[in-house]
Amino acid sequence: MARRRDLKDQQRRLSAATWSVLAEHGLPGLTLRAVAERAGCTTGMVLHAFADKRALLVHARELLHRRTGQRADAAQSAGATPLDALRSVLLQAASETEEKREEARVWIAFLAAALADPALADLHRRYNRSFVERVRGLVAACRPEWSPARCAATATTLVALVEGLNTLAAVDAETYTDDAQRAAIDAALAPVRAPAAMNAAGVAPILR
Amino acid sequence: MARRRDLKDQQRRLSAATWSVLAEHGLPGLTLRAVAERAGCTTGMVLHAFADKRALLVHARELLHRRTGQRADAAQSAGATPLDALRSVLLQAASETEEKREEARVWIAFLAAALADPALADLHRRYNRSFVERVRGLVAACRPEWSPARCAATATTLVALVEGLNTLAAVDAETYTDDAQRAAIDAALAPVRAPAAMNAAGVAPILR
Repeated sequence: MARRRDLKDQQRRLSAATWSVLAEHGLPGLTLRAVAERAGCTTGMVLHAFADKRALLVHARELLHRRTGQRADAAQSAGATPLDALRSVLLQAASETEEKREEARVWIAFLAAALADPALADLHRRYNRSFVERVRGLVAACRPEWSPARCAATATTLVALVEGLNTLAAVDAETYTDDAQRAAIDAALAPVRAPAAMNAAGVAPILR
Repeated sequence: MARRRDLKDQQRRLSAATWSVLAEHGLPGLTLRAVAERAGCTTGMVLHAFADKRALLVHARELLHRRTGQRADAAQSAGATPLDALRSVLLQAASETEEKREEARVWIAFLAAALADPALADLHRRYNRSFVERVRGLVAACRPEWSPARCAATATTLVALVEGLNTLAAVDAETYTDDAQRAAIDAALAPVRAPAAMNAAGVAPILR
């Protein structure tokens, strides 16, 4: 039992070390040695858990997917209406806290590595598409009268905006402040919000 | 004279080699040796022009800024109206051609490096802000009645959307097709477009 606990403990340490090295030092700083130093173990012990740098990257991307997925699940189920749920899911993905800024840095580092590695690119696409799919489902719940194509187009646009905000805020938090990000997401949600004064086509009716 | 021409020729070769190595192999593949091989010269000759990998990155980012800047100037001056100019500037920045996809890859690679290097991050911020400023000026020309804050917020949102589209299209051109990108940009331009039936506040007037 003690050995199994030790093993789990070591895995947790290596996992946390991988995450924090990537979040702090980016893709150029991610090496087996840096992870070993951060975890307080030998490079051999890192190699026992991760074959190479690519395995470290895959692990960090999976952690990111799990973290953001759990937070999105929570945001989604806390929403009183589909629109509340959609807005919360988008806002939780934007970089308002240090935790989320770390996530944006991991996201960018992984993406940069994926540009040179088809297997990493596959993983990135898969996880990003699952986020687009979540957003698409929420858009459809908000506007059941919209065509599937319109819901899909709205979802890809919203996700592009959120990831663009995240990406830019990672190096320019002064231009891309929390308020700026929230305002951008709210503006992008305007067509989905469907004010009472507008009909399904987004055209204001003539008042009688 | 011959020597000067040789030197210029060599600089051009090194510049093209830096760009194409970064666009093809991303940040992990950018080394002095890879650039030397691509340029058909020795590593020593690369070192004569670029002190280190960071200098290669800075050069590629400056090339990117110049290329996109020239294209944006052309798009802007070809626009018959401020709205045409704004739309063209945003569309030219999105990844519709292989050339622009290359640019997105260079942008991402540089950004990933900038996360671990404050000097690179400064350069990235400066160039990105100059794009935001261009877009802000065009938004203000389209909607002179808007407050400066509203023009600025619209510009940061439009730039975030464009960079998000670029970033996502770089690894998932199937989800982020040219049509999807164009539709997303047009949807985001709707508030700027100011249909004749809406007044300055974006509220449809009651028809009398």
